[in-house]
Amino acid sequence: MSTDPSTYCFNHTMLRVKDPKVSLKFYVEVLGMKLLHQMDNEAGKFTLYFLAYADDVPTNKEEAHAAAFSRPGVLELTHNWGTESDPSFQGYHNGNTAPQGFGHIAVVVDNLEAACARFDTMGVSWKKRVHEGNMKNIAFLLDPDGYWIEILESGFPRK
Amino acid sequence: MSTDPSTYCFNHTMLRVKDPKVSLKFYVEVLGMKLLHQMDNEAGKFTLYFLAYADDVPTNKEEAHAAAFSRPGVLELTHNWGTESDPSFQGYHNGNTAPQGFGHIAVVVDNLEAACARFDTMGVSWKKRVHEGNMKNIAFLLDPDGYWIEILESGFPRK
Repeated sequence: MSTDPSTYCFNHTMLRVKDPKVSLKFYVEVLGMKLLHQMDNEAGKFTLYFLAYADDVPTNKEEAHAAAFSRPGVLELTHNWGTESDPSFQGYHNGNTAPQGFGHIAVVVDNLEAACARFDTMGVSWKKRVHEGNMKNIAFLLDPDGYWIEILESGFPRK
Repeated sequence: MSTDPSTYCFNHTMLRVKDPKVSLKFYVEVLGMKLLHQMDNEAGKFTLYFLAYADDVPTNKEEAHAAAFSRPGVLELTHNWGTESDPSFQGYHNGNTAPQGFGHIAVVVDNLEAACARFDTMGVSWKKRVHEGNMKNIAFLLDPDGYWIEILESGFPRK
């Protein structure tokens, strides 16, 4: 029943990205998400990419669409066509410098040290390495647009 | 294995909020989430609130902590102490006006019309009502800080 909001589902978080080729490579190859679904909008000149941690991606486009819009933990990347090759495009705001608002997304891993070592071999950009600062049980890497991605161990044990 | 990133989990999305009393009331009473966990940081003068759609919330604080940092679909609200009563505080940036970046979070419901009718009875602020604009299968409401929350039906059927 829609009159019982506890049945709702926090489905997705949307971030704008400059270059989908670069962002998809990052979220799929580095972070291990799968591309579930893609929606092109000719009239609006934008494409939406839906990613999630998923065992399987339906090969049927209608099933993929339904899955992308029913499960939790989906990341929607919006690409406004042309930003990737527009020299005047200034880039997107990550919400952590003025004006503040959005902070970050977070990905949990089973072993923080091992995950961060792997990220290092892939040449990621770090906001905070796991051994920097006071909190040794957390790291922040930067996605290709500069959005912060918190990396922490499942259960966030104190160390 | 942390060397297999497909085992990772998109755990949470963090937004800064001006007044946690107002925001918690909104996310719990209007949107139907449950407050899973709270972490106060005296040194940093901030509190983190973790919400999710959950059938049960562990009464044991350690179990609640572990749950908040292992499951998908968690919303983290960061409250920097004092903003709620600081007349000079300008409010947070929702990412959709310049400078753009973050777009929105999305909640799926089983019946869009019924859900929106209920939101109306609760006096929510709308960015786009379901019957406005070209897309009749989507609505956007505004949370207390002005962040956009997309409301769509599970599976996002075209109408």
